[in-house]
Amino acid sequence: MCAVTHEDVRAAADRIGGHVLRTPVIEVADGLWLKLELLQHSGSFKVRGAFNRMLSAGELPESGVIAASGGNHGLAVAFAARALGARAEIFVPEVTSPVKVTGLAALGAHITQTGAIYSEAAEAAAKRAAESGALMVHAYDQPEVVAGQGTTGLELMEQTGGVDTVLAAVGGGGFAAGITVGTAGGGGPKIVAVEPERIPTLHAARRAGEPVPVEVSGVAADALGASRIGGLAFEILSGDRVESVLVTDEAIVAARRTLWERHRVAAEHSGAAAYAALLSGVYTPAPGERVAVVVCGSNTDPATLTTD
Amino acid sequence: MCAVTHEDVRAAADRIGGHVLRTPVIEVADGLWLKLELLQHSGSFKVRGAFNRMLSAGELPESGVIAASGGNHGLAVAFAARALGARAEIFVPEVTSPVKVTGLAALGAHITQTGAIYSEAAEAAAKRAAESGALMVHAYDQPEVVAGQGTTGLELMEQTGGVDTVLAAVGGGGFAAGITVGTAGGGGPKIVAVEPERIPTLHAARRAGEPVPVEVSGVAADALGASRIGGLAFEILSGDRVESVLVTDEAIVAARRTLWERHRVAAEHSGAAAYAALLSGVYTPAPGERVAVVVCGSNTDPATLTTD
Repeated sequence: MCAVTHEDVRAAADRIGGHVLRTPVIEVADGLWLKLELLQHSGSFKVRGAFNRMLSAGELPESGVIAASGGNHGLAVAFAARALGARAEIFVPEVTSPVKVTGLAALGAHITQTGAIYSEAAEAAAKRAAESGALMVHAYDQPEVVAGQGTTGLELMEQTGGVDTVLAAVGGGGFAAGITVGTAGGGGPKIVAVEPERIPTLHAARRAGEPVPVEVSGVAADALGASRIGGLAFEILSGDRVESVLVTDEAIVAARRTLWERHRVAAEHSGAAAYAALLSGVYTPAPGERVAVVVCGSNTDPATLTTD
Repeated sequence: MCAVTHEDVRAAADRIGGHVLRTPVIEVADGLWLKLELLQHSGSFKVRGAFNRMLSAGELPESGVIAASGGNHGLAVAFAARALGARAEIFVPEVTSPVKVTGLAALGAHITQTGAIYSEAAEAAAKRAAESGALMVHAYDQPEVVAGQGTTGLELMEQTGGVDTVLAAVGGGGFAAGITVGTAGGGGPKIVAVEPERIPTLHAARRAGEPVPVEVSGVAADALGASRIGGLAFEILSGDRVESVLVTDEAIVAARRTLWERHRVAAEHSGAAAYAALLSGVYTPAPGERVAVVVCGSNTDPATLTTD
């Protein structure tokens, strides 16, 4: 039995409904939708999981909440903590982009920048949480977090009237896993789980039969920089409905630029990864196939939209 | 009797429905919606009027269509012409931003850059149209254009379930006028027509009792740069439901930055003008008032979102 059910996602939607945006979809071509989750509060889908985790916990400890994050999850936890009147302590690795660190500070979070990549910051955060008693909000590997992210999938099925296929990016896998569960029911669409080829956490885990560490590099490393897939996500993303594909950094950069030039959607690199699979032909829909692409983050320096 | 009716707007919606996006709204606070018309094809609402004018004309002449434009209207006419397989000739003034000229070229339009401001380019275009027989698509002062823009208002009333007030920017006035007509029915909301104080076409016309020329300058001059309000727009915007307000360039710049930082909406200056009226307190809603702000254009260099 799966640790996160469709009912969990529905419950999450009720719980977080007043706190997150129902982000819009636009049908940019016949049968092709973009789900503009990058317009979400804090600039990414991550607030869905953060709110669901915090609101599921009952009263929050005096020491508040704690998280480790490449940036987007930290911003989300800081945003949700501020909304709920709680203290937030965020551990970010050195790879985190300046725009995200500035954003964290503006939300009033206590920031510790430590470790070269996400997993090192996560270790430091876990240690600190054990000392302080703060509620850990994991970036992807907690049931409440996966269920919260899954509300994106629920919404897009309602908004589009149902699709055959959903493309979503994979870092730690919580988002794609949540969407897989959130879109279940009546069979459910195919899920195309898209990873940068330089951070292939799901590919490596599928090959090994279990989550294993991978090298982390490339343009999307600050947001899809988990070095191994989450255990919950791996279980869910091993299902029959899920197809796993890789995209190059070049394809991500081109997709990001196209999203801006053609659709005026200002995504960060990770946010453009799913669209890259479509644009580069790594995933080619059949004639008449109804496809939704989730554009999941916008925490970027907009000056780089037309140059990087 | 008004030259553009609510029925005209409904007919326009049917006519252009397959060609334009139903742009999303997001409820960013309780009772406050942003209508994201900046995600429209060609980066602004102008394609609505362009398609409606062209599709109302029956068969287009061999010489195609012609337009004068500070940029957005030209992009829209070029976009619509390409979609309908027609030739497009666009006259733009020298104030037009490079990003818009580049966009026109990419759409395959024949471009003539002439005159310091819009009205001079418009004169040159009218002369050329008389020679070539091309269909003139006016930037604001044609009934089909006003009716087309008005479909934005129809949509937002449906999408929000109705609002008390709509804030929209005024240049030549076709957009705000269209929205005024498009939202009519059952009383209809108050329309707050927002102008940059350095291009007060509606204010000046209201004072004079008829459209009169004004000086054109400031940050929004490349998109709201008509030097006098359109005759159709003046008639419609003289109605009881319309309130006319002015915003400073500083307020526009601040609103544009806030749209990006808080909502990840990447607007051009003209696109942020309506929001500026709200953010600067020039228009203050009553408690419980349901308000929609139309963010109407995104043809901007994104590098300037956080610097200008």
